[in-house]
Amino acid sequence: MDVSIIVIGDELLIGQVTDTNSGFIARHIAPYGWRVADVQVVADDAAAIGRAIERGFQTAPVVLTTGGLGPTKDDITKTVMCRYFGGSLRLDENVLENVREIVAKRGFRLNELTAAQAMVPTSARVIQNRVGTAPIMWFELHNPTQVLVAMPGVPFETGEMFASEVFPQLLEKFPSKEAVEHHTIMVEGITESDLATLLADWETALPSYLHLAYLPKPGLIRLRIDGRHADAGFIRSEADRYAQELIALCGKHFLYDGDRTPEEILLEKLTLHGLTTGTAESCTGGNIAHLITSVPGSSAAMEGGIVAYSNRVKTQLLGVGDDTLSHYGAVSIPVVEQMASGARKALGCDIAIATSGIAGPTGGSDEKPVGTVCIAVATSKGIKSHTYHFPGNRGRVIDRASATAILMAIRAIEASYQQTTA
Amino acid sequence: MDVSIIVIGDELLIGQVTDTNSGFIARHIAPYGWRVADVQVVADDAAAIGRAIERGFQTAPVVLTTGGLGPTKDDITKTVMCRYFGGSLRLDENVLENVREIVAKRGFRLNELTAAQAMVPTSARVIQNRVGTAPIMWFELHNPTQVLVAMPGVPFETGEMFASEVFPQLLEKFPSKEAVEHHTIMVEGITESDLATLLADWETALPSYLHLAYLPKPGLIRLRIDGRHADAGFIRSEADRYAQELIALCGKHFLYDGDRTPEEILLEKLTLHGLTTGTAESCTGGNIAHLITSVPGSSAAMEGGIVAYSNRVKTQLLGVGDDTLSHYGAVSIPVVEQMASGARKALGCDIAIATSGIAGPTGGSDEKPVGTVCIAVATSKGIKSHTYHFPGNRGRVIDRASATAILMAIRAIEASYQQTTA
Repeated sequence: MDVSIIVIGDELLIGQVTDTNSGFIARHIAPYGWRVADVQVVADDAAAIGRAIERGFQTAPVVLTTGGLGPTKDDITKTVMCRYFGGSLRLDENVLENVREIVAKRGFRLNELTAAQAMVPTSARVIQNRVGTAPIMWFELHNPTQVLVAMPGVPFETGEMFASEVFPQLLEKFPSKEAVEHHTIMVEGITESDLATLLADWETALPSYLHLAYLPKPGLIRLRIDGRHADAGFIRSEADRYAQELIALCGKHFLYDGDRTPEEILLEKLTLHGLTTGTAESCTGGNIAHLITSVPGSSAAMEGGIVAYSNRVKTQLLGVGDDTLSHYGAVSIPVVEQMASGARKALGCDIAIATSGIAGPTGGSDEKPVGTVCIAVATSKGIKSHTYHFPGNRGRVIDRASATAILMAIRAIEASYQQTTA
Repeated sequence: MDVSIIVIGDELLIGQVTDTNSGFIARHIAPYGWRVADVQVVADDAAAIGRAIERGFQTAPVVLTTGGLGPTKDDITKTVMCRYFGGSLRLDENVLENVREIVAKRGFRLNELTAAQAMVPTSARVIQNRVGTAPIMWFELHNPTQVLVAMPGVPFETGEMFASEVFPQLLEKFPSKEAVEHHTIMVEGITESDLATLLADWETALPSYLHLAYLPKPGLIRLRIDGRHADAGFIRSEADRYAQELIALCGKHFLYDGDRTPEEILLEKLTLHGLTTGTAESCTGGNIAHLITSVPGSSAAMEGGIVAYSNRVKTQLLGVGDDTLSHYGAVSIPVVEQMASGARKALGCDIAIATSGIAGPTGGSDEKPVGTVCIAVATSKGIKSHTYHFPGNRGRVIDRASATAILMAIRAIEASYQQTTA
């Protein structure tokens, strides 16, 4: 099923905000055999929105709009919807009640502008927005069936409501004739082109009802087998069978059977072995701790972390030697190893992850250019460390270093603890 | 002058890559009075690209395409261009020479696929791509004048070449009649709708050459005055004059004259007063340290941080009292204040930012529901603290708490140090 997305908002066209909603929707619907046929980004302008709706329905029977529903620009989008789908604005008591509740929960009082969000076109069926004040509106035309769902622009609200309410209702409206199955595995330590070469023959020989998708992320590649077939049981077992073949083919590069973030896998391994973790971060500046603690329930295995940006914090809180710092420099294997062992002691954790590097844009040298990052993982069985060279700007170096450090911790747990509990 | 952008690439429609080219172009052309009228994201598909070009010229006389020019998908886009603008493909010797040089510089050898990039439509004028292999192609039709410039998809190449070659040539082709000016200020501690109410009369009375835009971010709202006028000096001074009025109207909610992230403002204030900072984070889990250290040059003012996830880390590294923890609980003003003063000592910093809260999804209670976050900022002049209730899921609570904590630190610096240096 094709979907055409319309992203509404002046702020996108002046480059102040980057659209992430359409990417989220695309990733969310792909496993169900749905795809985004095109995306139009248009201004908060009635003529532009109207034209985009017409164009959207030329491309696909389902049009999704995001944005243009905030309290200050409400009217334009809703008025355009009335023009296209008929009807006029009415006060929806349920929406008003929801707006009241959400506003009260946030500790604000209801003003007229916010209350106006409860005005909805009579031609719309309202889907209550549980996480924000702008109501989600479902419009429908027949012969041919055309559905437009207007959603707010705030990524959190759209993400939450699209996944839990809007898409399930779309699936019900446009039921699939084929069963769709997916099986994702994760691999690391190999480039995408080397992996493509390794898997070329196997991929060519795949039956027509299976397709392999490469989904690279910083530091790793997800491989997703997509299957579509009239027989649901058959395609389920085929997807799983071929996934096992794929795992065998990837050998030592195989990381995980499933689709999780590295930090989720780390927490799963920690929990499995009853271990705790902690961080000592210089160049990643707290991002590893942030990634780990972003996972719900992480407090069970996460003791804490130390962001050792200055040398003083490295020596005083992590026990890095002054002589080691002056002899090897902060970005070095001896320092990052001392940071890791120091973190195990200071935080009282089993597995400590430490980073020290040059994220840039300044601070690089011929010997240690920007992108040089030393990473160490200390466990009760010893320390593993490595120096990496990551490409890209400051943000990208931090992202890559963080993901790589977490992957190193996963591998260290596997190497140190797997056998003892098997 | 209006521009319509077409972003070409399957990878964008499956949500694997986020388009940043259109935002770059929009920000680059805005100061010249040019604007992006719309953006279309389409697949590597001849029919979709052809339809997008037609639609683009319905919207604007200038159409810019990015992507669809890589060595593996070259043909589709170029063939569509030949269909729309006439002509056929020819070998361009200058482009071939450029491709050869670029490939050699990257240490690769020239293969057939890459060499094929030197084939260009006879209807195109080539703009040499100094930083990549895909040639930039300028197409032009007359009565009315329509210009399409096809550019590569790699953000670095498009950014470099658009700014240095493409846009200067467009400006020459379509000389501007009006000057455009912008003035952004930032406000916080007020909802968008309350702000809209506060500013309603002032906004209504704005002269026709000025427009006010609301640009909300977590924890704050940016207000941008956009001005357009034939007289460049006049509109510059008008935009600034009205911005000063706006600042006065916003009163205590006014945060910053300019457009920066909270962490950039914090670092600016710290540098201005010669102060250092550090963090003690529980529920934000390192995100505040991550935000601060994401700013280039932050190491000058950032000492480090402690992610105190477990109570053990709170007591041992930050000196939080066991009795305080057991009496008030970890999410309490007394604990977060002790965390802040403890961080000042442990990290040796002037301004310490501390958070303790319930990010969810579990851990909430009637008394302290999910979203409850205590924040404290300790300076040499004392401690400020407050308990907030943030809406949304775990990620959003962390984002909001982090932004709010940084804003509190900015306000604390203003309150404690502003007068002494004024």
